[in-house]
Amino acid sequence: MSGTYVHGYHPRENERLQDQAGTLVELLHSDTTYPSGSLVLEAGCGVGAQTVTLARRSPEARFMSVDLSADSIAEAKRRVDSAGLTNVEFRQADIFALPFEAESFDHVFVCFVLEHLSRPVEALAILKRLLRPGGTITVIEGDHGSTYFHPDSSAAHAAIQCQVELQRKAGGNSLIGRQIYPLMVDAGFEAVRVSPRIVYVEMIEGVRESALAAGLIEPESFDVGVEALHRTTEADGVFCYTFFKGLGEKRDA
Amino acid sequence: MSGTYVHGYHPRENERLQDQAGTLVELLHSDTTYPSGSLVLEAGCGVGAQTVTLARRSPEARFMSVDLSADSIAEAKRRVDSAGLTNVEFRQADIFALPFEAESFDHVFVCFVLEHLSRPVEALAILKRLLRPGGTITVIEGDHGSTYFHPDSSAAHAAIQCQVELQRKAGGNSLIGRQIYPLMVDAGFEAVRVSPRIVYVEMIEGVRESALAAGLIEPESFDVGVEALHRTTEADGVFCYTFFKGLGEKRDA
Repeated sequence: MSGTYVHGYHPRENERLQDQAGTLVELLHSDTTYPSGSLVLEAGCGVGAQTVTLARRSPEARFMSVDLSADSIAEAKRRVDSAGLTNVEFRQADIFALPFEAESFDHVFVCFVLEHLSRPVEALAILKRLLRPGGTITVIEGDHGSTYFHPDSSAAHAAIQCQVELQRKAGGNSLIGRQIYPLMVDAGFEAVRVSPRIVYVEMIEGVRESALAAGLIEPESFDVGVEALHRTTEADGVFCYTFFKGLGEKRDA
Repeated sequence: MSGTYVHGYHPRENERLQDQAGTLVELLHSDTTYPSGSLVLEAGCGVGAQTVTLARRSPEARFMSVDLSADSIAEAKRRVDSAGLTNVEFRQADIFALPFEAESFDHVFVCFVLEHLSRPVEALAILKRLLRPGGTITVIEGDHGSTYFHPDSSAAHAAIQCQVELQRKAGGNSLIGRQIYPLMVDAGFEAVRVSPRIVYVEMIEGVRESALAAGLIEPESFDVGVEALHRTTEADGVFCYTFFKGLGEKRDA
Protein backbone atom coordinates (compact mmCIF):
# COMPACT_ATOMS: atom_id res chain seq x y z
CA MET A 1 0.00 0.00 0.00
CA SER A 2 2.93 2.31 -0.65
CA GLY A 3 1.97 5.83 -1.51
CA THR A 4 -1.44 5.40 0.07
CA TYR A 5 -2.67 7.60 2.81
CA VAL A 6 -5.74 9.23 4.21
CA HIS A 7 -5.24 12.88 4.80
CA GLY A 8 -7.87 14.37 7.09
CA TYR A 9 -7.62 18.10 7.49
CA HIS A 10 -7.20 18.50 11.21
CA PRO A 11 -4.35 19.62 13.45
CA ARG A 12 -2.23 16.71 12.26
CA GLU A 13 -2.88 17.61 8.64
CA ASN A 14 0.70 17.38 7.50
CA GLU A 15 1.44 13.95 8.81
CA ARG A 16 1.51 11.05 6.46
CA LEU A 17 -0.66 8.44 8.02
CA GLN A 18 -0.32 4.86 6.91
CA ASP A 19 -3.13 3.09 8.71
CA GLN A 20 -6.35 4.18 7.10
CA ALA A 21 -8.67 2.55 9.62
CA GLY A 22 -6.61 4.08 12.41
CA THR A 23 -6.77 7.42 10.70
CA LEU A 24 -10.56 7.42 10.56
CA VAL A 25 -10.68 6.58 14.25
CA GLU A 26 -8.28 9.41 14.97
CA LEU A 27 -10.28 11.82 12.82
CA LEU A 28 -13.49 11.07 14.70
CA HIS A 29 -12.31 10.32 18.24
CA SER A 30 -9.12 12.31 18.83
CA ASP A 31 -10.86 15.03 20.86
CA THR A 32 -13.19 12.77 22.83
CA THR A 33 -12.12 11.51 26.25
CA TYR A 34 -14.20 11.21 29.39
CA PRO A 35 -12.99 11.86 32.94
CA SER A 36 -12.34 9.18 35.51
CA GLY A 37 -15.50 7.94 37.18
CA SER A 38 -17.92 9.45 34.68
CA LEU A 39 -20.81 7.40 33.35
CA VAL A 40 -21.31 7.61 29.59
CA LEU A 41 -24.30 6.41 27.58
CA GLU A 42 -23.45 5.16 24.10
CA ALA A 43 -26.80 5.20 22.34
CA GLY A 44 -26.92 2.83 19.36
CA CYS A 45 -23.63 0.97 19.72
CA GLY A 46 -24.31 -1.43 16.85
CA VAL A 47 -21.62 -4.09 16.64
CA GLY A 48 -19.28 -2.01 18.78
CA ALA A 49 -17.26 -0.30 16.07
CA GLN A 50 -16.96 2.85 18.22
CA THR A 51 -17.37 1.16 21.61
CA VAL A 52 -13.89 -0.37 21.68
CA THR A 53 -12.31 2.97 20.83
CA LEU A 54 -14.41 4.89 23.35
CA ALA A 55 -13.69 2.48 26.19
CA ARG A 56 -9.99 2.26 25.38
CA ARG A 57 -9.56 6.05 25.15
CA SER A 58 -11.30 6.65 28.50
CA PRO A 59 -10.28 3.65 30.61
CA GLU A 60 -11.37 5.26 33.90
CA ALA A 61 -14.86 6.10 32.63
CA ARG A 62 -17.73 3.60 32.57
CA PHE A 63 -19.85 3.05 29.47
CA MET A 64 -23.43 1.87 29.10
CA SER A 65 -23.79 0.84 25.47
CA VAL A 66 -27.28 0.12 24.19
CA ASP A 67 -28.65 -1.09 20.90
CA LEU A 68 -31.97 -2.28 19.55
CA SER A 69 -30.45 -5.48 18.15
CA ALA A 70 -29.49 -8.36 20.44
CA ASP A 71 -27.30 -9.82 17.69
CA SER A 72 -25.39 -6.56 17.37
CA ILE A 73 -24.91 -6.36 21.12
CA ALA A 74 -23.57 -9.93 21.19
CA GLU A 75 -21.00 -8.98 18.56
CA ALA A 76 -20.13 -5.72 20.33
CA LYS A 77 -19.63 -7.60 23.59
CA ARG A 78 -17.36 -10.09 21.84
CA ARG A 79 -15.25 -7.23 20.47
CA VAL A 80 -15.01 -5.46 23.80
CA ASP A 81 -14.06 -8.69 25.57
CA SER A 82 -11.45 -9.50 22.92
CA ALA A 83 -9.93 -6.08 23.52
CA GLY A 84 -9.64 -6.90 27.22
CA LEU A 85 -11.86 -3.97 28.20
CA THR A 86 -13.90 -4.21 31.39
CA ASN A 87 -15.50 -0.76 31.58
CA VAL A 88 -18.46 -1.39 29.27
CA GLU A 89 -21.90 -2.71 30.16
CA PHE A 90 -24.39 -3.60 27.42
CA ARG A 91 -28.16 -3.37 27.40
CA GLN A 92 -30.68 -4.14 24.64
CA ALA A 93 -33.13 -1.24 24.30
CA ASP A 94 -34.96 1.03 21.89
CA ILE A 95 -33.54 4.54 21.81
CA PHE A 96 -37.14 5.82 22.09
CA ALA A 97 -37.79 3.71 25.23
CA LEU A 98 -34.56 3.67 27.18
CA PRO A 99 -34.78 1.99 30.60
CA PHE A 100 -32.92 4.68 32.53
CA GLU A 101 -33.86 7.37 35.02
CA ALA A 102 -33.68 11.04 34.07
CA GLU A 103 -30.28 12.63 34.72
CA SER A 104 -28.55 9.22 35.04
CA PHE A 105 -25.58 9.97 32.80
CA ASP A 106 -22.68 12.40 32.80
CA HIS A 107 -22.23 12.23 29.03
CA VAL A 108 -23.90 10.81 25.94
CA PHE A 109 -22.19 9.62 22.75
CA VAL A 110 -24.15 8.98 19.52
CA CYS A 111 -22.38 7.99 16.33
CA PHE A 112 -23.92 6.96 12.98
CA VAL A 113 -27.34 6.54 14.61
CA LEU A 114 -29.44 9.62 13.78
CA GLU A 115 -29.11 8.88 10.05
CA HIS A 116 -31.36 5.85 10.58
CA LEU A 117 -34.10 7.62 12.55
CA SER A 118 -37.21 9.36 11.20
CA ARG A 119 -37.47 11.48 14.36
CA PRO A 120 -33.88 12.52 15.18
CA VAL A 121 -34.80 15.60 17.24
CA GLU A 122 -37.11 13.51 19.41
CA ALA A 123 -34.29 11.01 19.98
CA LEU A 124 -31.91 13.82 20.95
CA ALA A 125 -34.49 15.28 23.35
CA ILE A 126 -34.86 11.86 25.02
CA LEU A 127 -31.11 11.62 25.39
CA LYS A 128 -31.00 15.13 26.83
CA ARG A 129 -33.45 14.07 29.54
CA LEU A 130 -31.07 11.28 30.58
CA LEU A 131 -28.16 13.71 30.93
CA ARG A 132 -27.39 15.40 34.22
CA PRO A 133 -27.28 19.20 34.08
CA GLY A 134 -23.81 20.19 32.97
CA GLY A 135 -23.42 16.99 30.97
CA THR A 136 -22.44 16.87 27.32
CA ILE A 137 -23.59 15.08 24.21
CA THR A 138 -21.34 14.19 21.29
CA VAL A 139 -23.00 13.45 17.96
CA ILE A 140 -21.18 12.16 14.87
CA GLU A 141 -22.80 11.62 11.49
CA GLY A 142 -21.63 11.38 7.91
CA ASP A 143 -23.24 13.09 4.92
CA HIS A 144 -23.39 11.23 1.61
CA GLY A 145 -23.89 14.55 -0.16
CA SER A 146 -20.32 15.42 0.80
CA THR A 147 -18.98 12.68 -1.47
CA TYR A 148 -17.05 13.77 -4.53
CA PHE A 149 -14.10 12.41 -6.38
CA HIS A 150 -11.79 12.60 -9.37
CA PRO A 151 -12.34 11.55 -12.08
CA ASP A 152 -15.85 12.88 -11.63
CA SER A 153 -18.70 10.69 -12.84
CA SER A 154 -22.43 11.23 -13.00
CA ALA A 155 -22.89 7.43 -12.92
CA ALA A 156 -21.06 7.23 -9.62
CA HIS A 157 -23.08 10.11 -8.19
CA ALA A 158 -26.23 8.33 -9.35
CA ALA A 159 -25.16 5.19 -7.48
CA ILE A 160 -24.63 7.20 -4.31
CA GLN A 161 -27.96 8.94 -4.86
CA CYS A 162 -29.56 5.47 -4.91
CA GLN A 163 -28.25 4.88 -1.42
CA VAL A 164 -29.61 8.25 -0.32
CA GLU A 165 -33.03 7.33 -1.70
CA LEU A 166 -32.97 3.89 -0.11
CA GLN A 167 -32.14 5.42 3.25
CA ARG A 168 -34.92 7.97 2.81
CA LYS A 169 -37.43 5.23 1.98
CA ALA A 170 -36.32 3.39 5.12
CA GLY A 171 -37.20 6.52 7.11
CA GLY A 172 -33.64 7.75 7.55
CA ASN A 173 -31.51 10.55 6.16
CA SER A 174 -28.01 9.96 4.83
CA LEU A 175 -27.57 13.71 4.27
CA ILE A 176 -27.97 14.39 7.99
CA GLY A 177 -24.37 15.41 8.74
CA ARG A 178 -24.88 18.99 7.58
CA GLN A 179 -27.95 19.25 9.83
CA ILE A 180 -26.34 18.28 13.12
CA TYR A 181 -26.18 21.87 14.30
CA PRO A 182 -29.87 22.78 13.83
CA LEU A 183 -30.97 19.35 15.12
CA MET A 184 -28.98 19.73 18.34
CA VAL A 185 -30.24 23.27 18.84
CA ASP A 186 -33.82 22.15 18.21
CA ALA A 187 -33.42 19.42 20.83
CA GLY A 188 -32.51 22.06 23.39
CA PHE A 189 -28.76 21.63 23.73
CA GLU A 190 -26.66 24.71 24.43
CA ALA A 191 -23.17 25.85 23.53
CA VAL A 192 -23.45 23.65 20.43
CA ARG A 193 -20.35 23.47 18.28
CA VAL A 194 -20.02 21.39 15.13
CA SER A 195 -16.80 20.65 13.28
CA PRO A 196 -16.67 19.09 9.84
CA ARG A 197 -13.93 16.47 9.39
CA ILE A 198 -13.02 15.73 5.85
CA VAL A 199 -11.59 12.44 4.68
CA TYR A 200 -9.41 13.28 1.72
CA VAL A 201 -7.70 10.40 -0.01
CA GLU A 202 -5.28 10.72 -2.87
CA MET A 203 -3.53 7.82 -4.65
CA ILE A 204 -6.16 5.62 -3.23
CA GLU A 205 -5.73 2.00 -4.10
CA GLY A 206 -6.79 1.37 -0.50
CA VAL A 207 -9.91 3.52 -0.48
CA ARG A 208 -12.30 0.67 -1.18
CA GLU A 209 -11.63 -1.13 2.10
CA SER A 210 -11.57 2.13 4.00
CA ALA A 211 -14.81 3.35 2.48
CA LEU A 212 -16.52 0.05 3.15
CA ALA A 213 -15.24 -0.11 6.73
CA ALA A 214 -16.63 3.35 7.41
CA GLY A 215 -19.95 2.44 5.82
CA LEU A 216 -19.56 5.23 3.26
CA ILE A 217 -20.46 2.94 0.41
CA GLU A 218 -22.19 -0.41 0.21
CA PRO A 219 -20.09 -3.17 -1.37
CA GLU A 220 -22.79 -3.76 -3.98
CA SER A 221 -22.74 -0.12 -5.06
CA PHE A 222 -19.00 -0.13 -5.14
CA ASP A 223 -18.63 -3.37 -6.99
CA VAL A 224 -21.55 -3.94 -9.33
CA GLY A 225 -21.51 -1.84 -12.43
CA VAL A 226 -19.97 1.24 -10.87
CA GLU A 227 -16.77 1.26 -12.83
CA ALA A 228 -16.53 4.99 -12.35
CA LEU A 229 -15.95 4.62 -8.64
CA HIS A 230 -13.40 1.90 -9.31
CA ARG A 231 -11.72 4.39 -11.59
CA THR A 232 -11.13 6.76 -8.65
CA THR A 233 -8.97 4.08 -7.05
CA GLU A 234 -6.32 4.39 -9.76
CA ALA A 235 -3.12 6.31 -9.23
CA ASP A 236 -4.45 9.78 -10.03
CA GLY A 237 -7.80 9.36 -8.28
CA VAL A 238 -9.06 11.44 -5.36
CA PHE A 239 -11.96 10.71 -3.02
CA CYS A 240 -13.57 13.09 -0.50
CA TYR A 241 -16.13 12.56 2.25
CA THR A 242 -17.01 14.68 5.28
CA PHE A 243 -18.09 13.65 8.77
CA PHE A 244 -19.69 16.15 11.14
CA LYS A 245 -19.05 16.00 14.87
CA GLY A 246 -21.22 18.05 17.20
CA LEU A 247 -20.72 18.77 20.89
CA GLY A 248 -23.47 20.26 23.03
CA GLU A 249 -24.25 20.81 26.70
CA LYS A 250 -27.29 20.38 28.86
CA ARG A 251 -27.20 23.48 31.01
CA ASP A 252 -30.37 23.23 33.13
CA ALA A 253 -32.33 20.37 34.61
CA MET B 1 -24.36 39.82 13.05
CA SER B 2 -24.75 38.15 16.45
CA GLY B 3 -24.69 34.39 16.34
CA THR B 4 -22.96 34.40 13.00
CA TYR B 5 -19.66 32.74 12.45
CA VAL B 6 -17.63 30.85 9.94
CA HIS B 7 -16.24 27.69 11.36
CA GLY B 8 -13.43 26.27 9.29
CA TYR B 9 -12.14 22.94 10.52
CA HIS B 10 -8.52 23.64 11.17
CA PRO B 11 -6.38 23.89 14.29
CA ARG B 12 -8.47 26.81 15.51
CA GLU B 13 -11.66 24.85 14.98
CA ASN B 14 -13.18 25.62 18.35
CA GLU B 15 -12.82 29.36 18.24
CA ARG B 16 -15.77 31.50 17.46
CA LEU B 17 -14.67 33.82 14.74
CA GLN B 18 -16.63 36.97 14.09
CA ASP B 19 -15.01 38.35 11.01
CA GLN B 20 -15.97 36.15 8.12
CA ALA B 21 -13.70 37.74 5.55
CA GLY B 22 -10.84 37.52 8.04
CA THR B 23 -11.67 33.89 8.67
CA LEU B 24 -11.45 32.96 5.00
CA VAL B 25 -8.08 34.69 4.78
CA GLU B 26 -6.92 32.79 7.85
CA LEU B 27 -8.22 29.50 6.46
CA LEU B 28 -6.29 29.93 3.21
CA HIS B 29 -3.16 31.84 4.27
CA SER B 30 -2.41 30.89 7.88
CA ASP B 31 0.37 28.45 6.96
CA THR B 32 1.96 30.52 4.18
CA THR B 33 4.83 32.85 5.00
CA TYR B 34 7.99 33.44 2.99
CA PRO B 35 11.45 34.06 4.44
CA SER B 36 13.22 37.39 4.46
CA GLY B 37 14.83 38.20 1.14
CA SER B 38 13.03 35.57 -0.89
CA LEU B 39 11.51 36.45 -4.24
CA VAL B 40 7.99 35.16 -4.79
CA LEU B 41 6.04 35.03 -8.05
CA GLU B 42 2.30 35.47 -7.64
CA ALA B 43 0.92 34.19 -10.94
CA GLY B 44 -2.51 35.58 -11.74
CA CYS B 45 -2.94 38.21 -9.03
CA GLY B 46 -6.23 39.54 -10.41
CA VAL B 47 -7.35 42.63 -8.49
CA GLY B 48 -5.00 41.81 -5.63
CA ALA B 49 -7.39 39.99 -3.31
CA GLN B 50 -4.56 37.68 -2.15
CA THR B 51 -1.67 40.04 -2.89
CA VAL B 52 -2.30 42.33 0.08
CA THR B 53 -2.46 39.37 2.46
CA LEU B 54 0.64 37.72 0.99
CA ALA B 55 2.72 40.89 1.15
CA ARG B 56 1.53 41.77 4.64
CA ARG B 57 2.20 38.30 6.04
CA SER B 58 5.75 38.18 4.61
CA PRO B 59 6.95 41.77 4.88
CA GLU B 60 10.62 40.86 4.34
CA ALA B 61 9.93 38.91 1.14
CA ARG B 62 9.52 40.54 -2.28
CA PHE B 63 6.62 39.73 -4.56
CA MET B 64 6.32 39.87 -8.32
CA SER B 65 2.60 39.79 -9.05
CA VAL B 66 1.51 39.29 -12.64
CA ASP B 67 -1.84 39.22 -14.37
CA LEU B 68 -3.12 39.17 -17.92
CA SER B 69 -5.40 42.17 -17.33
CA ALA B 70 -3.99 45.69 -17.09
CA ASP B 71 -7.20 46.87 -15.42
CA SER B 72 -6.90 44.20 -12.75
CA ILE B 73 -3.28 45.13 -12.12
CA ALA B 74 -4.22 48.79 -11.75
CA GLU B 75 -6.77 47.84 -9.10
CA ALA B 76 -4.34 45.46 -7.37
CA LYS B 77 -1.70 48.20 -7.27
CA ARG B 78 -4.21 50.62 -5.78
CA ARG B 79 -5.04 48.09 -3.03
CA VAL B 80 -1.41 47.36 -2.24
CA ASP B 81 -0.59 51.07 -2.11
CA SER B 82 -3.59 51.75 0.11
CA ALA B 83 -2.33 49.09 2.49
CA GLY B 84 1.03 50.89 2.66
CA LEU B 85 2.90 47.88 1.31
CA THR B 86 6.11 48.44 -0.64
CA ASN B 87 7.29 44.88 -1.28
CA VAL B 88 5.19 44.17 -4.38
CA GLU B 89 6.05 44.80 -8.01
CA PHE B 90 3.43 44.32 -10.72
CA ARG B 91 3.82 43.17 -14.31
CA GLN B 92 1.22 42.57 -17.01
CA ALA B 93 1.83 39.19 -18.62
CA ASP B 94 0.24 36.00 -19.89
CA ILE B 95 0.90 33.03 -17.61
CA PHE B 96 1.82 31.04 -20.76
CA ALA B 97 4.38 33.68 -21.83
CA LEU B 98 5.95 35.01 -18.67
CA PRO B 99 8.84 37.42 -19.22
CA PHE B 100 11.19 35.86 -16.67
CA GLU B 101 14.35 33.77 -16.81
CA ALA B 102 14.31 30.14 -15.72
CA GLU B 103 15.00 29.65 -12.00
CA SER B 104 14.31 33.32 -11.20
CA PHE B 105 12.07 32.76 -8.21
CA ASP B 106 12.38 31.18 -4.78
CA HIS B 107 8.66 30.46 -4.51
CA VAL B 108 5.49 30.59 -6.57
CA PHE B 109 1.96 31.27 -5.33
CA VAL B 110 -1.12 30.55 -7.48
CA CYS B 111 -4.61 31.09 -6.12
CA PHE B 112 -7.94 30.80 -7.98
CA VAL B 113 -6.14 30.78 -11.33
CA LEU B 114 -5.99 27.18 -12.59
CA GLU B 115 -9.80 26.98 -12.58
CA HIS B 116 -9.81 29.42 -15.51
CA LEU B 117 -7.22 27.60 -17.66
CA SER B 118 -7.80 24.90 -20.24
CA ARG B 119 -4.20 23.66 -19.84
CA PRO B 120 -3.52 23.77 -16.08
CA VAL B 121 -0.69 21.20 -16.12
CA GLU B 122 1.11 23.16 -18.82
CA ALA B 123 0.79 26.33 -16.73
CA LEU B 124 2.18 24.53 -13.68
CA ALA B 125 5.09 23.17 -15.73
CA ILE B 126 5.90 26.71 -16.92
CA LEU B 127 5.85 27.95 -13.34
CA LYS B 128 8.10 25.07 -12.30
CA ARG B 129 10.66 26.16 -14.86
CA LEU B 130 10.76 29.61 -13.23
CA LEU B 131 11.44 28.14 -9.79
CA ARG B 132 14.93 27.61 -8.51
CA PRO B 133 15.73 24.04 -7.44
CA GLY B 134 14.56 23.65 -3.86
CA GLY B 135 11.82 26.22 -4.36
CA THR B 136 8.17 25.63 -3.56
CA ILE B 137 4.86 26.21 -5.22
CA THR B 138 1.59 26.83 -3.37
CA VAL B 139 -1.64 26.24 -5.27
CA ILE B 140 -5.11 27.09 -3.94
CA GLU B 141 -8.35 26.32 -5.74
CA GLY B 142 -11.98 25.88 -4.77
CA ASP B 143 -14.28 23.13 -5.99
CA HIS B 144 -17.91 23.98 -6.72
CA GLY B 145 -18.78 20.28 -6.39
CA SER B 146 -17.99 20.60 -2.70
CA THR B 147 -20.96 22.91 -2.18
CA TYR B 148 -23.83 21.56 -0.13
CA PHE B 149 -26.24 23.06 2.32
CA HIS B 150 -29.28 22.68 4.50
CA PRO B 151 -32.09 22.82 3.61
CA ASP B 152 -31.02 20.86 0.58
CA SER B 153 -32.44 21.91 -2.78
CA SER B 154 -32.11 20.46 -6.24
CA ALA B 155 -32.90 23.92 -7.67
CA ALA B 156 -29.95 25.41 -5.85
CA HIS B 157 -27.67 22.60 -7.01
CA ALA B 158 -28.91 23.20 -10.55
CA ALA B 159 -27.97 26.88 -10.28
CA ILE B 160 -24.48 25.95 -9.13
CA GLN B 161 -24.28 23.38 -11.91
CA CYS B 162 -25.01 26.22 -14.35
CA GLN B 163 -21.90 27.99 -13.13
CA VAL B 164 -19.92 24.79 -13.53
CA GLU B 165 -21.14 24.46 -17.13
CA LEU B 166 -20.44 28.12 -17.91
CA GLN B 167 -16.91 27.75 -16.61
CA ARG B 168 -16.46 24.56 -18.64
CA LYS B 169 -17.68 26.32 -21.80
CA ALA B 170 -15.20 29.11 -21.12
CA GLY B 171 -12.44 26.48 -21.09
CA GLY B 172 -12.05 26.30 -17.33
CA ASN B 173 -12.94 23.84 -14.60
CA SER B 174 -14.69 24.90 -11.40
CA LEU B 175 -14.35 21.35 -10.02
CA ILE B 176 -10.56 21.59 -10.12
CA GLY B 177 -9.93 21.69 -6.36
CA ARG B 178 -10.13 17.92 -5.97
CA GLN B 179 -7.60 17.53 -8.81
CA ILE B 180 -4.81 19.67 -7.39
CA TYR B 181 -2.82 16.65 -6.29
CA PRO B 182 -2.69 14.79 -9.62
CA LEU B 183 -2.18 18.06 -11.52
CA MET B 184 0.83 19.03 -9.40
CA VAL B 185 2.29 15.55 -9.68
CA ASP B 186 1.75 15.56 -13.45
CA ALA B 187 3.57 18.89 -13.69
CA GLY B 188 6.60 17.31 -12.05
CA PHE B 189 6.46 18.71 -8.53
CA GLU B 190 7.70 16.51 -5.71
CA ALA B 191 6.77 16.06 -2.06
CA VAL B 192 3.28 17.24 -2.98
CA ARG B 193 0.86 17.60 -0.10
CA VAL B 194 -2.72 18.80 -0.42
CA SER B 195 -4.99 19.79 2.44
CA PRO B 196 -8.71 20.39 2.06
CA ARG B 197 -10.04 23.39 4.01
CA ILE B 198 -13.73 23.40 4.60
CA VAL B 199 -15.79 26.51 5.08
CA TYR B 200 -18.63 25.48 7.31
CA VAL B 201 -21.16 28.14 8.18
CA GLU B 202 -24.08 27.70 10.52
CA MET B 203 -26.65 30.37 11.44
CA ILE B 204 -25.57 32.15 8.37
CA GLU B 205 -27.32 35.40 7.79
CA GLY B 206 -23.89 36.65 6.76
CA VAL B 207 -23.05 33.89 4.30
CA ARG B 208 -24.17 35.81 1.24
CA GLU B 209 -21.50 38.49 1.55
CA SER B 210 -18.90 35.93 2.49
CA ALA B 211 -19.75 33.63 -0.39
CA LEU B 212 -19.72 36.50 -2.85
CA ALA B 213 -16.42 37.86 -1.50
CA ALA B 214 -14.81 34.47 -1.98
CA GLY B 215 -16.24 34.13 -5.46
CA LEU B 216 -18.08 30.94 -4.47
CA ILE B 217 -21.27 32.14 -6.05
CA GLU B 218 -22.08 34.84 -8.58
CA PRO B 219 -24.45 37.52 -7.31
CA GLU B 220 -26.83 36.77 -10.18
CA SER B 221 -27.04 33.10 -9.23
CA PHE B 222 -27.48 33.96 -5.61
CA ASP B 223 -30.07 36.64 -6.14
CA VAL B 224 -32.19 35.89 -9.16
CA GLY B 225 -34.73 33.20 -8.64
CA VAL B 226 -32.65 31.02 -6.37
CA GLU B 227 -34.85 31.26 -3.32
CA ALA B 228 -33.53 27.92 -2.14
CA LEU B 229 -30.07 29.35 -1.55
CA HIS B 230 -31.60 32.35 0.19
CA ARG B 231 -33.37 29.84 2.38
CA THR B 232 -30.04 28.49 3.65
CA THR B 233 -29.31 31.92 5.11
CA GLU B 234 -32.12 31.58 7.64
CA ALA B 235 -31.49 30.71 11.25
CA ASP B 236 -31.29 26.93 10.83
CA GLY B 237 -29.39 26.96 7.55
CA VAL B 238 -25.95 25.45 6.96
CA PHE B 239 -23.59 26.03 4.04
CA CYS B 240 -20.43 24.07 3.19
CA TYR B 241 -17.66 24.66 0.65
CA THR B 242 -14.14 23.25 0.45
CA PHE B 243 -10.92 24.84 -0.77
CA PHE B 244 -7.88 22.75 -1.58
CA LYS B 245 -4.37 24.00 -0.88
CA GLY B 246 -1.40 22.17 -2.38
CA LEU B 247 2.27 22.59 -1.60
CA GLY B 248 4.97 21.10 -3.80
CA GLU B 249 8.71 21.35 -4.30
CA LYS B 250 10.98 21.57 -7.29
CA ARG B 251 13.81 19.25 -6.35
CA ASP B 252 16.07 19.28 -9.42
CA ALA B 253 17.00 21.86 -11.99
